[in-house]
Amino acid sequence: MEENFDLHEQIKTFIEERHFKDLQVLFSEANAIDIAEALYGLSEKELILAFRVLPKEQAAETFAAMEREEQEMLIHSFTDRELYEMFGELGLDDAAEIVSEMPANIVARILGSTDRSTRHYINKLLLYPQDSAGSIMTPEYIYLRQGMTVEEAFMKIRLVGLDKETIYTCYVTENRKLVGVVSVRSMLIADPSTKVGDLMHENIISVKTTDDKEFVAGQIKKYGYLAIPVVDGEDKLVGIVTIDDAIEVIEEEANEDIQMITAITPDERPYLRSGAVKIWKQRVPWLVLLMLLSTFTSKILGMYEGALSACIVLNSFIPMIMGTGGNAGSQASVTIIRGLSLGEIKLRDTLRVIWKELRVSLLCGLTIAPVTFLKAMYLDGLYAEPEGFTIAIVISVTIIVTICAAKLVGAILPVLAKIVHLDPAVMASPFITVIVDALSLVVYFTFASMFVPALAG
Amino acid sequence: MEENFDLHEQIKTFIEERHFKDLQVLFSEANAIDIAEALYGLSEKELILAFRVLPKEQAAETFAAMEREEQEMLIHSFTDRELYEMFGELGLDDAAEIVSEMPANIVARILGSTDRSTRHYINKLLLYPQDSAGSIMTPEYIYLRQGMTVEEAFMKIRLVGLDKETIYTCYVTENRKLVGVVSVRSMLIADPSTKVGDLMHENIISVKTTDDKEFVAGQIKKYGYLAIPVVDGEDKLVGIVTIDDAIEVIEEEANEDIQMITAITPDERPYLRSGAVKIWKQRVPWLVLLMLLSTFTSKILGMYEGALSACIVLNSFIPMIMGTGGNAGSQASVTIIRGLSLGEIKLRDTLRVIWKELRVSLLCGLTIAPVTFLKAMYLDGLYAEPEGFTIAIVISVTIIVTICAAKLVGAILPVLAKIVHLDPAVMASPFITVIVDALSLVVYFTFASMFVPALAG
Repeated sequence: MEENFDLHEQIKTFIEERHFKDLQVLFSEANAIDIAEALYGLSEKELILAFRVLPKEQAAETFAAMEREEQEMLIHSFTDRELYEMFGELGLDDAAEIVSEMPANIVARILGSTDRSTRHYINKLLLYPQDSAGSIMTPEYIYLRQGMTVEEAFMKIRLVGLDKETIYTCYVTENRKLVGVVSVRSMLIADPSTKVGDLMHENIISVKTTDDKEFVAGQIKKYGYLAIPVVDGEDKLVGIVTIDDAIEVIEEEANEDIQMITAITPDERPYLRSGAVKIWKQRVPWLVLLMLLSTFTSKILGMYEGALSACIVLNSFIPMIMGTGGNAGSQASVTIIRGLSLGEIKLRDTLRVIWKELRVSLLCGLTIAPVTFLKAMYLDGLYAEPEGFTIAIVISVTIIVTICAAKLVGAILPVLAKIVHLDPAVMASPFITVIVDALSLVVYFTFASMFVPALAG
Repeated sequence: MEENFDLHEQIKTFIEERHFKDLQVLFSEANAIDIAEALYGLSEKELILAFRVLPKEQAAETFAAMEREEQEMLIHSFTDRELYEMFGELGLDDAAEIVSEMPANIVARILGSTDRSTRHYINKLLLYPQDSAGSIMTPEYIYLRQGMTVEEAFMKIRLVGLDKETIYTCYVTENRKLVGVVSVRSMLIADPSTKVGDLMHENIISVKTTDDKEFVAGQIKKYGYLAIPVVDGEDKLVGIVTIDDAIEVIEEEANEDIQMITAITPDERPYLRSGAVKIWKQRVPWLVLLMLLSTFTSKILGMYEGALSACIVLNSFIPMIMGTGGNAGSQASVTIIRGLSLGEIKLRDTLRVIWKELRVSLLCGLTIAPVTFLKAMYLDGLYAEPEGFTIAIVISVTIIVTICAAKLVGAILPVLAKIVHLDPAVMASPFITVIVDALSLVVYFTFASMFVPALAG
């Protein structure tokens, strides 16, 4: 990043001083991904100038790595011929991703300028549901026949290889049905006259076009593949998803989980590249909603105004009880949400999850209760109050019950969300906290009015 | 997973009924990773039996994919000869990872049974700091010389290829210094007499053995590499980190962030495979710590007992104010924590971050204040209270100030943590909440005592 910061400054200087020859040398020595990063933040005019200086072999990779807005600026500046060439150079999955993010008028121009087969593929990829394997796969893979020799296979790879997303895993098909997988590695080591059919693995792990992309990425990771084949409803091979896309999906989904857990509408854009209004839009609806939901807590607190007036010392422990409940509930809910999201926890595990959380919460409650008792008595000074001992006991018992309730609510709600096909992450800490706040207040005041003499009777 | 559940049941049945021939067939048709998953939960005796039936070519991959406890059980059952063979079959990075997780007596046995060069490598890998590139790299890569032809390069790959972690990216060295990188793809397409030196890229992106593994994984992802070369302090090539390890690091770090954000001591084990006591240990210290920290909030609340007694209606809005502050603070802190963790935010961006959060928090505050006012007046019924209008105004202004303070604290603390080389994630929501709780109470009661006639003067 430090280096790209310098690269950015250097590019700016060369453009301002019109040293385009130097700029060209600079580009030719840099990595396309770094160039894309360094071009970010140039004015439209500078960007277009810089892009024209970029050596042809780097242009497509740099373009694919840019932000949406800059791609849009450049497309506006392209002639139809340049547009045709650029989309011919791009991988079909990159091309489809770019098209899917552009406004309609630009999409029309792109599709009008690309060749028939590219247009056909892009249209097809765009038809798959968002977040499905179909939407991130590429039709660019190498397929072989069982009867081919290794030598013939390599000839085919040489012939078509440069245009393909990955050549290292080849797919053996028969009537477009996938019958085997063979790696370039095993072919390199084998005798050139060996038949592909003798080298291939027939125990194939594939995914369907309609599978969720998170599942697909998980399979690639689990089995350590460089790519996974995607088949349609009739088991015909229609594309592959490659490991670089899998990494993106894994990171994206983790970020999405983190954002939802924190009550932020998920967005893929890096923070520094999002405007304040954009960030406000991601955050404010949740703040408003949670603020309104806290009405329940206020109402409950209002119900106990009498008890509080009679024994105001009870009041100062409310934040501690609600806080501990909220923290205990988040711990459970976030753990379960992430487990469901990674596929480590299945719906059939629900009872095991509840049983485990029950034991964990009892352990936590029984550990914290004595600490709370001591804190309330000596740190908060209840020992000096008239009914201090009783109140400290009430607080400690409340903490145990609150932790158990919080952890159970935290464990069950994400599972319920999953059952009704919602993203479990909507049941994250802030919502759990609202429920647990209300619960803990009821428990606290119920115990208090039962045992504290000033309130009882 | 569903399938592996069945596989697990089938394996158990075959072992119980002593159908070892059927078990062997079952294994030979299954994927090694699935077998490792299905073996989980067998008794020690069943596990050892099943593992002995496993075809040799699957044994190492299955073993590497198992949980630590099961690997330990199996190692106990291995003869020295078997141990020697197993560690000869494993990739050196897998071998080092397994060794690093074993208790000392087993480590001694493993190192005593492996051959000299394996032992040497494992010892070397174990010396690199935890979480460094050195600790996850493998010395198993293919190196070529500039003067070799493509044909000679392929001969070398054929000769040594099967033992290497990845053969698809080859490294060109001179006196052990890295001078270029060449892909099998470019060599496959080139004429066999082409010199490697003419095909290789000299613009190499490499990492140092001491670089953080998260940074290394980020580089692999960013540049779309299958592997990245690792060099030592003298720029000599000592190993590579492959993309499968990068994926693991990326997912692991995301999980670690999520766990720390939720006040859980990070652990890599899947939830269902951790015992209740283990989970309790991850969670209870934070609950106790945060509970004790809430003493500040209690103390502050105690300070205003007089004001509260005079105007008890103020009390029921405290959870809403503290809750909104906590949520606003989490949104900022988690966003910044994740940005720092992904390398999207650098320390030099601190001022930009503060400026952005200031604008976002003003936008959020100004949006929420009128909603809060209306809610307090009509939903919570302040319109019927004697000083209701003034209190509702006080609450709304408090919300604006609290949100701004919360977002600034949330943005600044993770950056401060980073500056003093702590993991920014320790400054996550629960800690921010404790600070914001205290802040918001002070703001609330300061405004209230200034403007609410019953309290003022």
